[in-house]
Amino acid sequence: MDNSSEILQHLLQTPPPAPHPLTYSFLAPNLKGLTNAFTILAQHPNRFATEATPPTNKQTPSLEIAVFASATESFSQRNLNCSIATSLSNFREVIQAAKDTHSLRVRAYISVVLGCPFEGYDVDAHRVAQIATELLEMGADEIALGDTTGMGTAPRTKELLNCLSAAGVRNEDIAMHFHDTYGQALVNTAVALEHGIRTFDCSVGGLGGCPYSPGATGNVATEDVVYFMETLGMDTGVDLDAVVDVGEWITGEIGKGNASAVGRAVLGARKRAEAEGV
Amino acid sequence: MDNSSEILQHLLQTPPPAPHPLTYSFLAPNLKGLTNAFTILAQHPNRFATEATPPTNKQTPSLEIAVFASATESFSQRNLNCSIATSLSNFREVIQAAKDTHSLRVRAYISVVLGCPFEGYDVDAHRVAQIATELLEMGADEIALGDTTGMGTAPRTKELLNCLSAAGVRNEDIAMHFHDTYGQALVNTAVALEHGIRTFDCSVGGLGGCPYSPGATGNVATEDVVYFMETLGMDTGVDLDAVVDVGEWITGEIGKGNASAVGRAVLGARKRAEAEGV
Repeated sequence: MDNSSEILQHLLQTPPPAPHPLTYSFLAPNLKGLTNAFTILAQHPNRFATEATPPTNKQTPSLEIAVFASATESFSQRNLNCSIATSLSNFREVIQAAKDTHSLRVRAYISVVLGCPFEGYDVDAHRVAQIATELLEMGADEIALGDTTGMGTAPRTKELLNCLSAAGVRNEDIAMHFHDTYGQALVNTAVALEHGIRTFDCSVGGLGGCPYSPGATGNVATEDVVYFMETLGMDTGVDLDAVVDVGEWITGEIGKGNASAVGRAVLGARKRAEAEGV
Repeated sequence: MDNSSEILQHLLQTPPPAPHPLTYSFLAPNLKGLTNAFTILAQHPNRFATEATPPTNKQTPSLEIAVFASATESFSQRNLNCSIATSLSNFREVIQAAKDTHSLRVRAYISVVLGCPFEGYDVDAHRVAQIATELLEMGADEIALGDTTGMGTAPRTKELLNCLSAAGVRNEDIAMHFHDTYGQALVNTAVALEHGIRTFDCSVGGLGGCPYSPGATGNVATEDVVYFMETLGMDTGVDLDAVVDVGEWITGEIGKGNASAVGRAVLGARKRAEAEGV
């Protein structure tokens, strides 16, 4: 995989045609990483949009900064090579600089919030709430709660969200980031929807995974989440058939199986309709 | 696939060793089918148990009769070659004879209750309730509501169950039979659990399908249902690790992919633990 700087450089040099403005999330583990982004931005003035400088045309990509904290010390050490406290102190500098220099939006992920490959199911919801409030106080615009291992269950998803609400974190500042490793992503999505969360991460064809979380499958598939939300009467604004096409195309390009149940079912139904000349 | 008579004959001649008594569900579309079962039973007296004659030892298989109605006329015609009314009149004879002759338990399935391959999503819940009450009045002991196509959604599952309750059908007389074609089986299971249903069909490794419902995948995997119910704090009495082994073995024997997310995740976690010498 290319690193964030290479991807950013490419996006600014050759912005991909898109009907909607793209947002690129630049992963900045520390101030040095962020400085790399600033150097690239300086080489391409007015080629990107921020919260302060909206896009001049709809093909101008937007930029936001992503930081990745961890809910457990073991995962922080393996993933970031430092303690949670040290990572938060790095992120404080990153967030400050991102805001001060370019008024960039900052998305703060917290990994393994519902299960850790090294510490198991028992991740402390209060610790997650504490990390989330610290990141928000630093200026993070959104907290993405990552069920990196897919070990999240319906009752513990509810418990975690109750704990965050009790800590004063607003639902509109939270995004859920579910993996479908144990097939629980939609059930947990239902719990989060009932709690009032309205932002959910997903990936076409269920692509993804985590190099530091062995065995974790990809994110829950966009197709499955969109289909599920539409069944609940929600208007996602997403063209399901088009996303199914993208999922089939990209998983084919990458040579991975299409992990979306909805994608496979829709493609199968289309094939049968064609065979029957419908 | 062997037919029901061949399987029954085999089970009575060579009852498989099992820690718990097995129940075989004999598919009897009409009186002729049931008569075949009775002929086989007569050849093997006292080798099977019924509600009236409990098993003499725990390896004695139990027998029950299954009839399959359909929620839509199109599916009834394609699956049973007759109208819903004709099928119900056949089932009345079957149920009567099963009760009168051997006091056999009768399970009545209703197929495509939440979506039909020929009529689409709009299956009439009131028609399902009407068919269910007719079957119960004939003497059926349990109604299995089949989401044969996996087109069931959370709101329509709730609507169907509300409709059955309003028609006077008791929750304890209902079993849910979900397919996971669109990844909605666990979400729908959650809805049914909340409604008070406690009997759920599933199959190890997600085996199954329906020859008359093209593209339908197998039943929701036993592993996934058991894992989900245990996360809710329910005691299923099922050894999840053992079922995962069975699912991996049987899908291997049959040469199908293991369709259980939980099965694959548990097997992956075991392999990693072995590799790390844990």
